[in-house]
Parts: sequence; structure tokens; C-alpha cells
Amino acid sequence: MFTELDHHYMNIAIELAKKGRFTTTPNPNVGCVIVKDNEIVGRGYHQLAGDAHAEVYALRQAADNAQGATAYVTLEPCSHHGRTPPCAQGLINAGVQRVVAAMVDPNPKVAGKGLAMLQQAGIETAYGLLEDEARALNRGFLKRMEQGLPYVTCKLAASLDGKTALNNGQSKWITGPLARRDVQQFRAQSCAILTGADTVIVDDAKLNVRSDECDIELPQGHTLRQPVRVIIDSQNRLTPDLALFQIQAPIIIFRTHLDNNHQWPHFVEQIELPTEQTKVSCRAALKELANRGINTVWLESGATLAGVFAQQQLIDEYVVYLAPKLIGHQGKSLFNLPEITMMENVNQLEFTDVTQIGDDIRVTAKTC
Amino acid sequence: MFTELDHHYMNIAIELAKKGRFTTTPNPNVGCVIVKDNEIVGRGYHQLAGDAHAEVYALRQAADNAQGATAYVTLEPCSHHGRTPPCAQGLINAGVQRVVAAMVDPNPKVAGKGLAMLQQAGIETAYGLLEDEARALNRGFLKRMEQGLPYVTCKLAASLDGKTALNNGQSKWITGPLARRDVQQFRAQSCAILTGADTVIVDDAKLNVRSDECDIELPQGHTLRQPVRVIIDSQNRLTPDLALFQIQAPIIIFRTHLDNNHQWPHFVEQIELPTEQTKVSCRAALKELANRGINTVWLESGATLAGVFAQQQLIDEYVVYLAPKLIGHQGKSLFNLPEITMMENVNQLEFTDVTQIGDDIRVTAKTC
Repeated sequence: MFTELDHHYMNIAIELAKKGRFTTTPNPNVGCVIVKDNEIVGRGYHQLAGDAHAEVYALRQAADNAQGATAYVTLEPCSHHGRTPPCAQGLINAGVQRVVAAMVDPNPKVAGKGLAMLQQAGIETAYGLLEDEARALNRGFLKRMEQGLPYVTCKLAASLDGKTALNNGQSKWITGPLARRDVQQFRAQSCAILTGADTVIVDDAKLNVRSDECDIELPQGHTLRQPVRVIIDSQNRLTPDLALFQIQAPIIIFRTHLDNNHQWPHFVEQIELPTEQTKVSCRAALKELANRGINTVWLESGATLAGVFAQQQLIDEYVVYLAPKLIGHQGKSLFNLPEITMMENVNQLEFTDVTQIGDDIRVTAKTC
Repeated sequence: MFTELDHHYMNIAIELAKKGRFTTTPNPNVGCVIVKDNEIVGRGYHQLAGDAHAEVYALRQAADNAQGATAYVTLEPCSHHGRTPPCAQGLINAGVQRVVAAMVDPNPKVAGKGLAMLQQAGIETAYGLLEDEARALNRGFLKRMEQGLPYVTCKLAASLDGKTALNNGQSKWITGPLARRDVQQFRAQSCAILTGADTVIVDDAKLNVRSDECDIELPQGHTLRQPVRVIIDSQNRLTPDLALFQIQAPIIIFRTHLDNNHQWPHFVEQIELPTEQTKVSCRAALKELANRGINTVWLESGATLAGVFAQQQLIDEYVVYLAPKLIGHQGKSLFNLPEITMMENVNQLEFTDVTQIGDDIRVTAKTC
């Protein structure tokens, strides 16, 4: 059904889509390539929610060459008037002859309607080309659309023997500068960074993306987006003097009851959520974030919160940096979990990548 | 000083040497290539202590072609009458014109005398070609010769969060079958497998090499060698009914005082050693093993013994299998170590390799 050339062009569209990974939230990353007579006449990718979609950029570049051409898009063209007019209509108007989509848009507003609109206009359509790769581009967007929850990546750093800190709590620095730089890249791609009040207070963590500590290539004209910083503070322990609040960028604090004892900066929003064993429900927190268009959450917490998330099966992926150090049994563990008495009941993961990052190694695993 | 062809031939000699890795103990692995007019006329490697050296095999194959040829050997040819006549004399008798050694033999009985003997016979000699690679072949033999201690590799298996067992001690199986098969390869290359009485008792471990669980290519005519099994039993807790003692192959038990309450099989040797805090001194145990010609020790123990070895800087290399599992803080840690209060005092290692083995990953690190 798909030729080698189809694969080739869709691969290019996927690479284009990736360029938007620091900026498109809450929208998905989309790339588009328009091909006429085996020549690419238009390229585009989505850069920013509210701005033009990938197809618009590609059609603009193709101009009259779009007539009779094939358009490769990593996601089904939209059929609805959002903040921009429907792309399916744009492709029809441009006289495109064939549209190949990597996947159908799971957004209920689209969900096949885009392809149907094209077919009704007599355009040849196909989908499912490099679908796995296309899904990987937007695993957060897809999970939010399909399950109403964001895609959660749990980041941890430990010694080779799995200790995140000394017994006295000292953790600076387990991993080296290159691993910490690597973390900034992941933060910058996330919609939100989530942690617990403990981590914020102990480390006086800012939880921002520091542009001088990473090498991020942004689309032209764009500035670094700060992910929403989200803190679970079940006991109202945060105070406005913490370093976190000195950086003017959105913060959400999830609480069991609102804190009216402090004056909070305008960019801080307090949200009361249902409780679970006297603490904020982590699932409720994630649902609330999904409702607000958060596709991906970078969980960077201590062993207690990481344990609760793991236990409740709210984590999709683990990124664990291991340093070439031995701390011993008195150091702090990575996950606090209830006692497991049978090996078959242990949380099972699947390793997806191992990479040396400076002196450290980064292990990536997903839940099974 | 060395040409590209010299490198080429020495590389072949090194590959030949590796073929003896399961069998030569306590002797080093040595390979030899004899080259005449840019053609290999003889190849040999050392197979078994007491048997012919690498040079003998290579010279035998080269026969008259050795006249005027160059011999590449991974270790300086011996100059002394051991169980076999000196190889330096063999090379002289065969009329070899030039001898290139990767390294000088650190054995005090040789230590340059082999090369000197060749020079006195008018043969051109050189050494230091691919010396690092040649040293890696025999790191155990070299450490024993240079420091009077064996090269110790500490093997451990844990979940991604660094737990070797559940809180109740259950550890079967953390890692998968391919990782366990991989361990058999390492065991088979070791001169000795060392552990503590605890591990033997809890797991009823046999500590042997199981040929049906590994793919070992032995030199023709050789059978699988069982490494010496060494147990540190400071409190005389072992009993002869354990599975370990049902396999007829050498066992050494290190004790603080001999056990005369049991009848031990003939292949079991008890050795009394100096104590350190009421327990067998680990350093004394290793010295004793080195004195008995043990080049390499595969340490496969629990967290306490591994911790003592690490603490006393007796470990050269770590091989840690990490399984894609999370056990949580209540699981057993990899190393029991005294509390560390400053990050700069943490045991520092260096990662040398990371490889996926089935569903698990194998991390190799050396001490700095």
C-alpha cells in the first residue's frame, strides 16, 4: 500500500514535526511535506498553539506546485475551525491530489473527519504509514486524548547501588554536569514539572529550565517556554519566600485545603483536590493537569512521591541516571513502596534505552 | 617503531591468546604468531599449565619456515626451565630473526631475561606493541605478580532501584535467564569463586560452572575446569550436607578456627586465617589465594561481604546486572557500608561498559 518513497517522505515529515517539541504544547507536534513529481515543494511543521498548522506552512511554500501534489502529514489534517481554519479545507483548496497521514487524530473533534472531508472532495487518502513513530512524537497528547491523563516520566538520579542521597540527605551532586544538562533538555520538552513540597523545601529547587545549562534549538523567533511548575503540598508547607516563587512563570500548587495565610504572587494558582489517606490524590492531580491541556509531566520528586505514583501505576516512563558511585545501605532509596513478599508481584518494567552521559549512564524504562 | 603490519599480527596473537581463557590458570594467556615474508606460517596459544607454551605450538607449525621469520608474542618468551624448556631458547634454535613482545613478563623469574637471551643470540627484539590489550588479557596474573593479590570482580544482581532481594530475602529470580547464563561465562573464566557462608546457606548455592547453562568454546580435548570454590565462614556455620559439598571439585573454607566437629570430603580444605574484628580478614584470604596461584576471583556474595571488600578497596571491578523491576526501599541493598556523611567521600567508580543482556542490563565499572 505504501511505497519506499512514501516512507522516505513521511520520515522527513516526522523529523520536521520534532522541531516543534519545545513549543507546541498543548498542541501535538505535526510535520508536513508536499511532494510533486518526486520533488519536495513544501515543508512545514507546527510551531505554537494558536499559530498556523504544519499544512499551512507547507502549502504556503508549495504555492501553485500543490496542484496535483501528494501531502504527507504526521497527523490527520484537522476538520474543525479552532483558532485556525481547517487544514483539510486548505488542502482541498490547494488542489492536492493525495493525502497520506501517519495516523488518525484521536482528538474527538477530528477523529477521522479530516480524512472524510478530503475523500468527499475526491482526494485520495491513506493513513497508518509510520504510525508508531508518529505516535511516539505525541505520546503525551495521545494519552491525554485517549485516557484523560498526561504522559508521566519519572526522573531519578542515584548511585550505582540505587541511592539518591546520603543518610544525612546530602545529594549534591550524585550525577555529573552532563547528566544535569541532559535533564534540562527533558524539562524543556515537558508541559509541566511536578514535585512534592518536600523536594522544593529541602533543595530550595527552582524547577525552571535554565537556558544556559542546555542546548535547545528553538524555531526562529521563539523564546524558551517555561514548563508549568506543579507542586503537591498536602500540608501547606510551602512559603512564598522560596526560590521557586522568585521566578515569574506559572506555578500550580495542589492542596487538600487552600492556604490563606500567605500572600502569593499572581502567577501562582492554588487548587484544592480530593484527598487519599489525608494527602492530595495523585490521580486527581494528573486529571486536573490533563483538563488544563498538560500533555506531559516530568516528575522529579523524592522517594515517597515517586513511590506513590509508581504504586498507583501513574508513571509511563522512567529516566534514571546512575552515577559511578557506591553509597551503601544507609543511603536513601529511590522508591518508597509497600513491602512486597512475592517476586512475581514486583513492579515490572522494560528497558528501552541505556546511554552513557558523561561519567554517568542514563537508563530509560517503560512500564509493562 | 612498529608498523601497521606489526599491529595486525599482534592483534591476531592477542585473539589467539584469548582461546585459553577458560583453561590456562594459574598461567597467563599467551598467543604467538610467526610471520615470514608477510605470511603467517605458525600460530599457537597456551592451553594448559604444564603443557606447551604458545611459542612451541607456533614454532612446531612453522617448522623450517621459522628460519629468518618474525615471532609476535603477547608476553615476553620465558627464559627459565619450568615445567617446559625456555621458549627464548626454542626461538633461537628455530633461527627466528626478530621477536616482538607485547609486554615484558612481570614474573620475577623472567622479567626481561627472555628478551635479553634473544638479544645475546643476535635476534632483533622489541616490546610494548599493544601492551594495554595484552595486559587486559592477563589482568589477574599481572595483579598477582605485581601486588601479590588476585584481581577481584564483584558480581551483583539487583532491581533498577538497587535491591538484591525482597525484605523477606526472596531473590529468585531478579534477573532473567540470559543474565544468569552470562554469569556462567564469567565464572568459567575465573580461577576462584568466592562467597560468604551466609550466601551458601541461604541459597544452598553450588557455586559451580554448569556447562549446560553456558556456551563455552574450549580448546580441543579440554574439559570444563571448575573454579576453586572459596567460602569465608568466620563462625563455622557450614555443614557437609550442603549442596556445595555434593559436587566433587576443590573447595577452600577460610575460618578463624578450624572445624573439627564434622567429617569433610577430601576435596575440601580448611584454612585458618588472621581475623579482623572477629571475622576472617578478607585481605589475608586474598593473599592466601594469590599464594596458591589464584589470579582472578569472582566475588558473588551478599551485601555484607561485598561491603567489606569494597570498603577495604579489595575490588577491582564490578559487574552489576540490573533488572527492569522496582522493589522499593524495603528490599535488600547491594552494599552494606559504614555511613558516609560527605559526598566527596563516596566510593568513586568508573563505568567501562553497559550492555543489554536479554531483558536486563549489565553495567561494568572499575574502581578509580
